[in-house]
Amino acid sequence: MNRVKTLVEHRCFGGTQGVYSHQSECCRCEMTFGLFLPDAAKDGRVPSLWFLSGLTCTHENAMIKTGAQYWASRHGMALVFPDTSPRGEDVADHSDYDLGQGAGFYVNATETPWSGHFRMWDYVSEELPALLADRFPLDPGSQGITGHSMGGHGALTIGMTFPDRFRSLSAFAPIANPTQSDWGRKQFKAYLGGNEDAWKAHDASHLVARHGYPGKILIDQGSKDPFIDLLCPKALETALAASRQEAGFHHRSGYDHSYFFVMSFIPGHIQHHAAALKGS
Amino acid sequence: MNRVKTLVEHRCFGGTQGVYSHQSECCRCEMTFGLFLPDAAKDGRVPSLWFLSGLTCTHENAMIKTGAQYWASRHGMALVFPDTSPRGEDVADHSDYDLGQGAGFYVNATETPWSGHFRMWDYVSEELPALLADRFPLDPGSQGITGHSMGGHGALTIGMTFPDRFRSLSAFAPIANPTQSDWGRKQFKAYLGGNEDAWKAHDASHLVARHGYPGKILIDQGSKDPFIDLLCPKALETALAASRQEAGFHHRSGYDHSYFFVMSFIPGHIQHHAAALKGS
Repeated sequence: MNRVKTLVEHRCFGGTQGVYSHQSECCRCEMTFGLFLPDAAKDGRVPSLWFLSGLTCTHENAMIKTGAQYWASRHGMALVFPDTSPRGEDVADHSDYDLGQGAGFYVNATETPWSGHFRMWDYVSEELPALLADRFPLDPGSQGITGHSMGGHGALTIGMTFPDRFRSLSAFAPIANPTQSDWGRKQFKAYLGGNEDAWKAHDASHLVARHGYPGKILIDQGSKDPFIDLLCPKALETALAASRQEAGFHHRSGYDHSYFFVMSFIPGHIQHHAAALKGS
Repeated sequence: MNRVKTLVEHRCFGGTQGVYSHQSECCRCEMTFGLFLPDAAKDGRVPSLWFLSGLTCTHENAMIKTGAQYWASRHGMALVFPDTSPRGEDVADHSDYDLGQGAGFYVNATETPWSGHFRMWDYVSEELPALLADRFPLDPGSQGITGHSMGGHGALTIGMTFPDRFRSLSAFAPIANPTQSDWGRKQFKAYLGGNEDAWKAHDASHLVARHGYPGKILIDQGSKDPFIDLLCPKALETALAASRQEAGFHHRSGYDHSYFFVMSFIPGHIQHHAAALKGS
């Protein structure tokens, strides 16, 4: 399991921005991920922040577009950039950008043709954390999770389900109520089948109402996000308010859905995670 | 001349990261550029830093990969990201990555088939600054210039030739002695012809010896840059020392030629330009 191939390593802000691949047991294909290790990792295990990316992205987008390494290096924190789906010629795919490769939606698919490889839920919450803690100087007890768009959905659902594994939580423009959105219903039907009750475990707004998260959830959402009707931030805000979940939900005036939005607010997110993980 | 098309604008760190195009008179084709305007530009003309990119790049690479907008916004400074060559079906090209489109080398070509469009020297030093000062709230008397690799070559040669237009100067891993390098001789022969004397005006090491620059030149170079033999930093360092040019030449241990190197040292470069431009 622990054969990690180094694809490339770049020195970056005194640390190392690497890209690695490994044969994933749960996804049954070679998976690529980015990992930024700050200089502080030379001296021992460091906290890490997981960044889950959105539709059409790979491990690379957030790694090259958010400028997050500067802030992570300042806080002595690692950054993990997983891919968004299994990949390869043997892996099922679809011609739509929002289904199949690049669109794993962070679930374990139960339906054909997806169930053979699409197990991003297990991959992100179990397999990759175990692999990284074994192979790199990361503190498995001090991990936070965030993400953008589909990755914000993944971060919120995985974070709320495994608060002991991910001790801090935030999201950028998350798909916030996928059971009620065309970004969600289509994919859940394909990956999870027609029983809509099974979808609710993958809907952040439902999870907030069901059990929430034992810490503050930080969310940023651009007011000029062209996908806002698909993201459904209002459902999540309503759920947060109804359950009195500790949260900061920021509507950012004039910002869209791009990485220019993400890069603008990543400093506050990394600060949020660093503060929450300190001493954990 | 002043028809600037807005291709896209993103809010970013309180300012605006835009991408625009216009019909270039000197390049005789549609040219695209990126422009970051900080929030401070609402209140009046701001200083600007020009970032010239390297081989194979467009206006986009530095705009999305350097994280420079954060630092520019802090200093109330605009960022200009020009393209690296003329583009289009009518524009001459070559199958090599280092000649033709994406490889303009910041010269005015005199030789066929390049002379019709490849006039990046005039474009960067005259046409685009005039257009930007006319169309956007930029202070034409407060401009600095930097760049990476081929763009570092462009920044150094244009900066040293027009110190009144570019009042601060720096470079990341510049092609520093192109008249003696395979990154230079091939292109200068194609673009400028066989008279090597004409090449010297486009060689930073020659220009330092000839007249230098009336201010401090800041240069960063990675020690593990795989292209170091093509970049020839030693020739430039020797010339800087021989002419007692005010300069800071930093060898950065373990860094390579990538944008992870650039992003790691852009904070210091923007600080350098902001300090030099303050009050100019």
